[in-house]
Amino acid sequence: MLTRRGFLKLAGALTAVALGMGCAEKKPEEPRAATVATPTPTPQLELPWPYVKLDPAVVGEKAYEKYYEHHCMFGVFDAIVDKLREKVGYPYTTFPSEMMVYGKGGVAGWATLCGALNGAAAAIYLVSNDPDPIINELYQWYCQEELPDFRPKNPKFEIPKSVSGSPLCHVSVTNWCKATGFKAFSKERSERCAWITASVAAKTVELLNAQADGTFVPAYPLPDRVKQCRGCHDKGSALENTRGKMDCTQCHFNLGEEHPKFG
Amino acid sequence: MLTRRGFLKLAGALTAVALGMGCAEKKPEEPRAATVATPTPTPQLELPWPYVKLDPAVVGEKAYEKYYEHHCMFGVFDAIVDKLREKVGYPYTTFPSEMMVYGKGGVAGWATLCGALNGAAAAIYLVSNDPDPIINELYQWYCQEELPDFRPKNPKFEIPKSVSGSPLCHVSVTNWCKATGFKAFSKERSERCAWITASVAAKTVELLNAQADGTFVPAYPLPDRVKQCRGCHDKGSALENTRGKMDCTQCHFNLGEEHPKFG
Repeated sequence: MLTRRGFLKLAGALTAVALGMGCAEKKPEEPRAATVATPTPTPQLELPWPYVKLDPAVVGEKAYEKYYEHHCMFGVFDAIVDKLREKVGYPYTTFPSEMMVYGKGGVAGWATLCGALNGAAAAIYLVSNDPDPIINELYQWYCQEELPDFRPKNPKFEIPKSVSGSPLCHVSVTNWCKATGFKAFSKERSERCAWITASVAAKTVELLNAQADGTFVPAYPLPDRVKQCRGCHDKGSALENTRGKMDCTQCHFNLGEEHPKFG
Repeated sequence: MLTRRGFLKLAGALTAVALGMGCAEKKPEEPRAATVATPTPTPQLELPWPYVKLDPAVVGEKAYEKYYEHHCMFGVFDAIVDKLREKVGYPYTTFPSEMMVYGKGGVAGWATLCGALNGAAAAIYLVSNDPDPIINELYQWYCQEELPDFRPKNPKFEIPKSVSGSPLCHVSVTNWCKATGFKAFSKERSERCAWITASVAAKTVELLNAQADGTFVPAYPLPDRVKQCRGCHDKGSALENTRGKMDCTQCHFNLGEEHPKFG
């Protein structure tokens, strides 16, 4: 592969040869043949790739559409990357976005990490020079806010909100089903996940824009109850027997008789 | 961007111009200048990308090394992609593998999906024309087997095995800490995750090789207890209030008095 810059350099050199320099005497042993045979491939592998600020409303709408093409992870990732392909061009034009289909339904229907959040994290690592604070903020927002908060222009249904409390697909879907009465494989649930895809894409762009402007300030800290759990179970603690930033109490709601009381 | 094929075609045309055809009369208005200005960019975006069978032992060893470069997700993903870069070349030479760092510690330390499994699913979608059965098999294997089962040639420590029961980083790490007595942020736990990275990379390659040979047969079905839960809670059931393939009983071990007895 040649980069666009490499191509222009090489093409320029060859054009110069064709139009002038080489024409007086034909010398097929001249180094120009070697120049053609050994271009230096310099694909743009270094990160981050150049980011230009995008319109969250436009990207959200695009993500909603893309959900119905290839599901949640692809929806968020390619709504962002496709816009950058349009505005920046290379190297985004080389990225095979369709691979991101894998995150659908929390990875091939396993309901682990919400695909919208998986796609967002992938996109954030592609374009941000300080990605982890953006991911932390996005994931806490997803856990704590009433979502979806992005209503597409032409929805198939109106979608009620719920609080997931978790970045996991399984919990996010079940809590929404519990709050709304809809079934987990209903068309309304699909539409809800399309709105979630749009919401996460728009929020991701909002955060990336703020970071690009130097105005990013986290607004969703780790909840106090999680900090309390981590005091005994996380890094540097007495037990240090776990890791993570998910809300412990969502699964560990029954701590039994032996666990110290807290709250 | 130019593909390798596009570059060779263009270079050939320009060399022909330089070495012969265009030299008798100088005509700067000739269409050759236009040819240079408008190459057709044809990046390889279509999936799957060409897969050649790899050696699981070699890829596992490479994944172990790469874990210590950029963590678990990158370790699995780039151990596979780097070998394909070496053996196939383009289009793998265009992929910015470093973006896959994002899955570390279950995405930026959130302890959601195990990064090794996240990286494997991403690689599988890049190279397989029927990815979901491979992911299902890999994830069930990860949940059910005693792991890690890949011992690198020069380990930092000897690592005891445990059964995760879950594809989630949080559960996988905590169950290993419980089984071994090591702490969640110890050097031994890092080494265990490096071995897990190697184990997942080697298993992924084994499954991809089998699929390439047409000999892939799943050996790790959904456990019966999970099928039983799904009978009332999953797609097409009476409640249909959730989705996923994770082992329900790992979190929902206390079903309370109102839930029907089963087992």
